[in-house]
Amino acid sequence: MIGVLGGMGPQAGVDLASKIIANTIARRDQDHIPTLLFSDSGIPDRTDYLFGRTQVNPAPMMARAVKSMAAAGARFVGIACNTAHSPPIFETFLREVEAECPEVKLLHLIEETVSAIQDHFPRVRRVGILSTTGTYKFRLYDDSLISKGLYPLRPKNIENLGEAIYNPDLGIKACSTPVTVQAREWVGQAVESVIEQGAEAVILGCTELTLALPSAHHLGIPLIDPSTFLARALIRAAAPDRLAPWRVA
Amino acid sequence: MIGVLGGMGPQAGVDLASKIIANTIARRDQDHIPTLLFSDSGIPDRTDYLFGRTQVNPAPMMARAVKSMAAAGARFVGIACNTAHSPPIFETFLREVEAECPEVKLLHLIEETVSAIQDHFPRVRRVGILSTTGTYKFRLYDDSLISKGLYPLRPKNIENLGEAIYNPDLGIKACSTPVTVQAREWVGQAVESVIEQGAEAVILGCTELTLALPSAHHLGIPLIDPSTFLARALIRAAAPDRLAPWRVA
Repeated sequence: MIGVLGGMGPQAGVDLASKIIANTIARRDQDHIPTLLFSDSGIPDRTDYLFGRTQVNPAPMMARAVKSMAAAGARFVGIACNTAHSPPIFETFLREVEAECPEVKLLHLIEETVSAIQDHFPRVRRVGILSTTGTYKFRLYDDSLISKGLYPLRPKNIENLGEAIYNPDLGIKACSTPVTVQAREWVGQAVESVIEQGAEAVILGCTELTLALPSAHHLGIPLIDPSTFLARALIRAAAPDRLAPWRVA
Repeated sequence: MIGVLGGMGPQAGVDLASKIIANTIARRDQDHIPTLLFSDSGIPDRTDYLFGRTQVNPAPMMARAVKSMAAAGARFVGIACNTAHSPPIFETFLREVEAECPEVKLLHLIEETVSAIQDHFPRVRRVGILSTTGTYKFRLYDDSLISKGLYPLRPKNIENLGEAIYNPDLGIKACSTPVTVQAREWVGQAVESVIEQGAEAVILGCTELTLALPSAHHLGIPLIDPSTFLARALIRAAAPDRLAPWRVA
């Protein structure tokens, strides 16, 4: 059984669960892979912790949620949140999961994404990164890209991108169905900023961003949706013969 | 915690989880209601059982899934499948859940839908029903509508509607992202058939159908999406102060 740790934000978890279904070869309900989505709204904000606005590390709550999914049978678990993969959170989380649920295999959103860029876009060298300030601070994608010989780029106006995600009135976390025009504009400007710097592909490195930019390209440049690649990695781990062929949407 | 029993089909469960989020008043991730979605692909087909094509009643598997969600903390559970509410399945299921998980409150998709039609469309009398042949056979919506003084209508070509859902090549269960043009056409014809008979509202009484007709109206007639009303009933049960005002999409 696949486990999806969601709630960070909630629509991102649902989106990952939906992509697991969409990337599975199935003609009947029974052909799908059993999946448990735990949309755990009790998990504190990841960015707040990384910037010291709270002392509460979300890791123990995340590990507790995984434990409860493991008790229900989940064996391959993915986290529908980029920022949660920052070392101060992820390392504590990983230690607890390894100690308490040794039967669970955790898949890593960032590593799966960078590895999918290499597989599916072998000629790309300059990669734009759109993410929360927490993900930027801990260089999640930067270091992973550099270690594979790729060159990371960031948009000029990181503050607006943060507002697009977090603004309590206009941001995607507050309004996701539909996303506000302002949030969509801020995200669009960020994509254009990295493309101006020469990005040949752009990672939408916060699970909320694909809600603002659901298409596969922007100005002819491929947009990389980490959730899709995590979904595919989870299927490959749980039931490799069910993985649908990859295609650009 | 809310529990969503999904997998029947899988996208319908994800859709219900998504509607719980969309109908919740929330400005931050932490404002949402913790929700567990169990997309259990091990549950046998409901229509096959109702028509005697298999002797395996899906009820015990469904009850087992609820038990495992209850163990993880779910207290208010909805089932993202209309056909599963047919008495031969639902009554066995209900008995097992009441015996083994007395802490769980089960909400009833059909009853919540008919009651929402009365609340939100008080002038409607003639209601079209689109559903699987299993739901028709057991008169799920028919009897519930009649008991409230409403008049049920069925489309002429029920077979095509069944194909739109179940056809292994073109049906919505096989192809949901996106739905095929043919399936969309069959569903459209069924809606038009009940409207021609005078329907003032049309229930999309199989969770797959809203994937083919996501809009709120067709030819000026409101389309009733049971999942939306089950989502709202689950929020009302779990955290009534978080229920967003109702609005036609």
